[in-house]
Parts: sequence; structure tokens; C-alpha cells
Amino acid sequence: MKKTRFDRWPCPVARAVDQAGDAWTLLILREAFYGQRRFDQFEEALGIGRNILARRLERMVENGLLERVPYQPRPLRHEYQLLPRGRALFPVLMALLRWGNDWAAGPEGPPVTLVDRRTGQPVQPVLVDEATGHPVTPERVRARPGPGFPGALLEEEPVRRRFRLTTP
Amino acid sequence: MKKTRFDRWPCPVARAVDQAGDAWTLLILREAFYGQRRFDQFEEALGIGRNILARRLERMVENGLLERVPYQPRPLRHEYQLLPRGRALFPVLMALLRWGNDWAAGPEGPPVTLVDRRTGQPVQPVLVDEATGHPVTPERVRARPGPGFPGALLEEEPVRRRFRLTTP
Repeated sequence: MKKTRFDRWPCPVARAVDQAGDAWTLLILREAFYGQRRFDQFEEALGIGRNILARRLERMVENGLLERVPYQPRPLRHEYQLLPRGRALFPVLMALLRWGNDWAAGPEGPPVTLVDRRTGQPVQPVLVDEATGHPVTPERVRARPGPGFPGALLEEEPVRRRFRLTTP
Repeated sequence: MKKTRFDRWPCPVARAVDQAGDAWTLLILREAFYGQRRFDQFEEALGIGRNILARRLERMVENGLLERVPYQPRPLRHEYQLLPRGRALFPVLMALLRWGNDWAAGPEGPPVTLVDRRTGQPVQPVLVDEATGHPVTPERVRARPGPGFPGALLEEEPVRRRFRLTTP
């Protein structure tokens, strides 16, 4: 089945979804943050089929999330290391973790929690505005077209309604 | 193709991914936060096939992300309203938006940005610890098994390595 590509949509969410909005990709990233680097490690940790894993890793390398690096000359073997572009997806995983613990834990409580590496204190991730520290909630923020939004699209009525722009 | 289900994995990320780790589901949520509620609105805004949209909406209703509510008696018509469980995915979308603007904008700049509804000031979402306000980064936090993690699994060597537990 042909997958729809979202990478040219004038929307940062769609572009991120295009590269990371896939169950296996997100779980491979999770493993990478746990320190896994090798094909067999991903395979074992996720119970994922080898062909699916190979395809996902290839796409993640193409997209600059992971780098394929030789770690042994003979026989030649490669491992997959997180690149800055992939590391920058950490908040996405943490937001998913928070939701999973808040909304999908059983009566026994969260399966996995976070602690501060230095203090050992529990950490609860929450999204705030960098400048003011205010929580980022649907009530508090709204989206608006940025400098990269195509000017022609801004003339269209459905687009103007979406951004609640007054019609000229 | 049978999809792997992640909803019983002892991992909050996997459970969240099971319900929201899908490109169309995330984009339908995006539209819901823009205020769209009706089948035809989702269809028009996303250019999504009607059968795919119907299947995704059904699953989102089953999972308690959206509620199907009648808005007109004859002919009977329904709309889809965000439930608290779906609204709680807002930080996931905001983390994707931030990544898309930081790593997938062209030279012309971000296509969509956020502003504070009251002050109009730009908002940049960042993930911090609720209690301390410290940024949540891979260098600063680590995962550990929570109360809902199956005890038997904690005996297994790969699991102990993952959580960097010292072997007894």
C-alpha cells in the first residue's frame, strides 16, 4: 500500500509525523535512548520482524535520525547511533510516556517512570513555554501561520477559518 | 496486514504508541484541536480517503480519545468531540510541532507557530520536570521500572541491563 507523504505539507506537525509518526519508528527510537545500537539488539528488544526493522532503520538513516557507523572491520558490522535530529525527538517520547502513565496504566500503577540521574527524585514531564514557564495547553495557546506558510493558501477561506483570521 | 498491538507491553511509551502512534490518528487529533468535528471537515482538511478516515475515527472512539455525539436529529448526523483522554495528547502534538519547526522547516522559516491567546506573544514549547522546572533531557533523566512493571521480567538479564540494575 502506498503511504501518504506529509513532508511537504505546510505544517510542522505533519512534517514531524512523516518522519516519526509510525509505531515502530517511535519504539526503535525508544530503544536507541535506552542505549541499544545494533540490529540484533533492536530485534530482540522489540520482537520485530527483520525485514520491517531493516526498512525502518533505512528510512531513519535517510531522514538523518540515525547514523550507520562501522564498529568492527571483519566481518564488517555496523551499528546505529542517534544523530542530533533523532535526539531532538526525545520530548515526543517523553510526552507519550507521560500520557501512557496517566491514561493507560492499570490499577497496579505506571510500568516505567522517570528519575533525575543525579538526585534520584521522580521526574514528571510537563510542557511549558520556554520564556514564561506557563503550561502549554489548548486553552492557552493557538496556532498561527508562520513565515514559511505559503501566502497563496492564506487567501483560502477554510485556511482562514482554521487560523481564525478575519476575512478582509 | 495484521498490526502488532503494543497495548499490553509493560511500557507507557508502547501503550501510548498503540493508541496514538499512527500518522493519520495524529493528524486527525491535530484537526480536532483546530476545532474540526465532522467527518466531512476531517476529510476535506486532510485529503484522507473516506474508508481510512472511518476506520481511524472508529478506533479513536473505541479508545476513548473521541466521543461520537449526535448534532442533528433528521437526518441523524454525528460529530466527533475530543474527550479528556484525547485532549491529554496535546503535549505529544506540541512536541511534534516544535520538532517540525526546529528540524524540518525550509529556509523560509516555520510554517506554523504558536502564540499565547491572551498576550499574543510567541510560545516555544519545552519539556520540563513539573516539580523542579529542569529541562527533561536524556542526559538528565533515566527510566526505571515502576510499580506496574511485572516482577518476573525484572529477573531477566536483558531487562536488568536496560534499566542498569546491578545484578544481585
